[in-house]
Amino acid sequence: MKRIIDVTELALRDAHQSLIATRLGIDDMTGACEDLDNAGYWSIECWGGATYDACIRFLNEDPWQRLRTFKKLMPKTPLQMLLRGQNLLGYRHYQDEVVDRFVEKCAENGIDVFRIFDALNDLRNVERSVAAVKRVGKHAQGAISYTVSPIHSTEVFVEEAKRLVEMGCDSICIKDMAALIKPQAAYDLVKGIKDACGEQTRVHLHVHATTGVTLVSLFRAVEAGVDCVDTAVSSMSLGPGHNPTESFVEMLEGTGFGTRLDLDRVLKVKEHFAHTLPRYREFLSAVTGVETEIFKSQIPGGMLSNMESQLKQQGAGDRLHEVLDEIPVVRKDTGYVPLVTPTSQIVGTQAVLNILMGRYKVLTGEFADLMLGYYGAAPGERNPEVIELARAHANKGMIDCRPADLLEPEWAKLRAEALPLKGCNGSDEDVLTYAMFPKVAPGFFATRDEGPRNLGRDPETGALETEVPQGHAGKIT
Amino acid sequence: MKRIIDVTELALRDAHQSLIATRLGIDDMTGACEDLDNAGYWSIECWGGATYDACIRFLNEDPWQRLRTFKKLMPKTPLQMLLRGQNLLGYRHYQDEVVDRFVEKCAENGIDVFRIFDALNDLRNVERSVAAVKRVGKHAQGAISYTVSPIHSTEVFVEEAKRLVEMGCDSICIKDMAALIKPQAAYDLVKGIKDACGEQTRVHLHVHATTGVTLVSLFRAVEAGVDCVDTAVSSMSLGPGHNPTESFVEMLEGTGFGTRLDLDRVLKVKEHFAHTLPRYREFLSAVTGVETEIFKSQIPGGMLSNMESQLKQQGAGDRLHEVLDEIPVVRKDTGYVPLVTPTSQIVGTQAVLNILMGRYKVLTGEFADLMLGYYGAAPGERNPEVIELARAHANKGMIDCRPADLLEPEWAKLRAEALPLKGCNGSDEDVLTYAMFPKVAPGFFATRDEGPRNLGRDPETGALETEVPQGHAGKIT
Ligand SMILES: [Co+2]
Ligand SMILES: [Co+2]
Repeated sequence: MKRIIDVTELALRDAHQSLIATRLGIDDMTGACEDLDNAGYWSIECWGGATYDACIRFLNEDPWQRLRTFKKLMPKTPLQMLLRGQNLLGYRHYQDEVVDRFVEKCAENGIDVFRIFDALNDLRNVERSVAAVKRVGKHAQGAISYTVSPIHSTEVFVEEAKRLVEMGCDSICIKDMAALIKPQAAYDLVKGIKDACGEQTRVHLHVHATTGVTLVSLFRAVEAGVDCVDTAVSSMSLGPGHNPTESFVEMLEGTGFGTRLDLDRVLKVKEHFAHTLPRYREFLSAVTGVETEIFKSQIPGGMLSNMESQLKQQGAGDRLHEVLDEIPVVRKDTGYVPLVTPTSQIVGTQAVLNILMGRYKVLTGEFADLMLGYYGAAPGERNPEVIELARAHANKGMIDCRPADLLEPEWAKLRAEALPLKGCNGSDEDVLTYAMFPKVAPGFFATRDEGPRNLGRDPETGALETEVPQGHAGKIT
Repeated sequence: MKRIIDVTELALRDAHQSLIATRLGIDDMTGACEDLDNAGYWSIECWGGATYDACIRFLNEDPWQRLRTFKKLMPKTPLQMLLRGQNLLGYRHYQDEVVDRFVEKCAENGIDVFRIFDALNDLRNVERSVAAVKRVGKHAQGAISYTVSPIHSTEVFVEEAKRLVEMGCDSICIKDMAALIKPQAAYDLVKGIKDACGEQTRVHLHVHATTGVTLVSLFRAVEAGVDCVDTAVSSMSLGPGHNPTESFVEMLEGTGFGTRLDLDRVLKVKEHFAHTLPRYREFLSAVTGVETEIFKSQIPGGMLSNMESQLKQQGAGDRLHEVLDEIPVVRKDTGYVPLVTPTSQIVGTQAVLNILMGRYKVLTGEFADLMLGYYGAAPGERNPEVIELARAHANKGMIDCRPADLLEPEWAKLRAEALPLKGCNGSDEDVLTYAMFPKVAPGFFATRDEGPRNLGRDPETGALETEVPQGHAGKIT
């Protein structure tokens, strides 16, 4: 008897977020849904992360409508989203009532599995959303942001996993956004969690492919007892994306492990996206091969191109290597935060400023907030000198409470601000859109009736169906 | 104490043969040689395979001069070549004296390690070259063409390995040109060979990356006791090429295995080729991602694009799927030959003809020869009906001797034909060029003095330094 390994398909969310800056429009996804729904996946990740932002910012597409479409087209397979804990899908902390309402609406519109993480692994920042998910009867998956540093060890992560289980999480995800987890580390961590939390604790492993080693890590995780792995169909895989689903299935032959996947269905999904991806060539990540330098810099692929363009704008395109050397310094000063949205951007931007202006001569507001505890507790000791600089810059003190505890109830205010906006339909969903993206939502509400804008181009002629808005680089989450 | 795994670097031969149709010119390689030579490789594969053909056909470059250049620039690390047994680097069998002289000249000009294989695994076809290599005191590596079929098993391959060791080979290579070897199979085969031939028998593993699973296979081979693996520096890796060198090194961290490689040197080689490869964009393989369909069709990536263009020329570009279904039929009729140069081309072309003209309505001369034993013994039973068709087509009988036994001494004749050619310098090396490529050699001799032609283009402007000759697709070997 083979032991069955479950698989989560990433094509509809993280894969295009990583490969083409989250630009995939709904029209280019619906054609794959029937095969996806019948292929035998444990879940299909299709929402959350940067997709909400991209929908309203670039695609004139209502993210809630996208979710309902997915639910209609994929009724059999659990739909999964990525949720940044107390930040929801936005870039600040929200007051608990907003969190509760957001989770309720996600469940109501079709989400079955909530993967919840905090960039700093400050578990106080995920508690409220985990509780909200449990209350609506859905699957709450607690994710650990994997990183490598002098203070991060298997034991530290296992301890976090235990606390997530105690919090009521239905499963644990090891989330390795920069492809840092090597085979032996994957084995040790999966086994460590199983040993500490019990065999019945479901362990999922989310890895990117950027460093080239992580399919081997998945293999070792399988040997260590992992329950579910994340992959993307081959035509939407590799580079800063993920390991190919088909390769994962094939590599298990003869090993005593297997999946439930129907490869004929998966190959149809492959063909679909093999024709789709070339339509988005202009958004394609510059990183296409393998980048083992990430083991040193820890910079996810998507962030690298962000920093390159920041530097070029400043006429300092040749100073990338200095910035890459500066990042570990800045990261150490923050107490070794994992580099994931939003910490990757905060640390990356500060490193760029350090190189251009002199170390900590100029601080960003976000960096000061990070140093002062406004994103949560740091994994390790923060540099006291840099804390002083941050205090002076921000003209406020350090906090050590859960950041959201400082927030006043805000739902009524957000609702009052959202409703008068031209095109706002008065729903809680629209209020949430406004809450998370107050600058973008008004424009989106006003043009929503024009319907989704598909940014794909004919790969032969380059013909575009509608206008292309200003580009931005996708966030690796 | 870590067990050390040796590494052979493929960037200078198989990598560019697989990725850019063997077009890399010497000028685009010399800059990497110092770092390659100091990185700690067990050997550097840099010659043989299709490089000889490409040198004289497309690059106006003397392959022997290329070899001497490599030897001069990389004096420390053993230089390795791929040799097709009795076929040398050409497309027919050569009489033994030609084989002996070729091997002598290779050794004299700089080859230290000879990897010798026969497409059919008919070991009579490698015996003479193995003996010649031993006589000149170099390393003779006997390679097994790996394939998957109802008649190929671990036991069959282990038996071949034993015979290669008995023949005097200094090491055994498992050569998997289509990326078919899955992790468990790799483990079983490496262990099987070690168990049967003794722990002291060196086992090397050559795999391509096309199906996406083979880095895991390398990992399992390491666990099974493999001595050396083949990889290519990351900027010249993946797709129909090979697994990235850096990823191989990194994935071993914490496992009890390690390499001698200096990653700083390897990263310099990476940067070199990251700037080089874009200069050859026009030759880039259409296969860039992962193709697990190969597990079914067994068609190496390079062969796929060959067949596609054959079909397009016949106005039948839409019939590729039929051809892919026909290939296993034709292969079965041949007695399950492995698909590697030249059998991959012979079987592929026959499958195309079968689809376009009706099954075996038209035979190629090469296919008839294959059926009649003129390439050697088949691994399994050949289809007697197809043998009859071949007999009628070729108007000759079957043979079961070693094909080269039918050949009369030919060196003197080849020499007499080569010497009068305009530009022939009278050396044995030139005679060998003529012997292997009688149609191309005269033109090459005549223009050799103009010096190497570099086909790289400026990636920004597209400007070409010299004229581009007619393209051909690289052979996967
Ligand atoms: Co991710
Ligand atoms: Co090869």
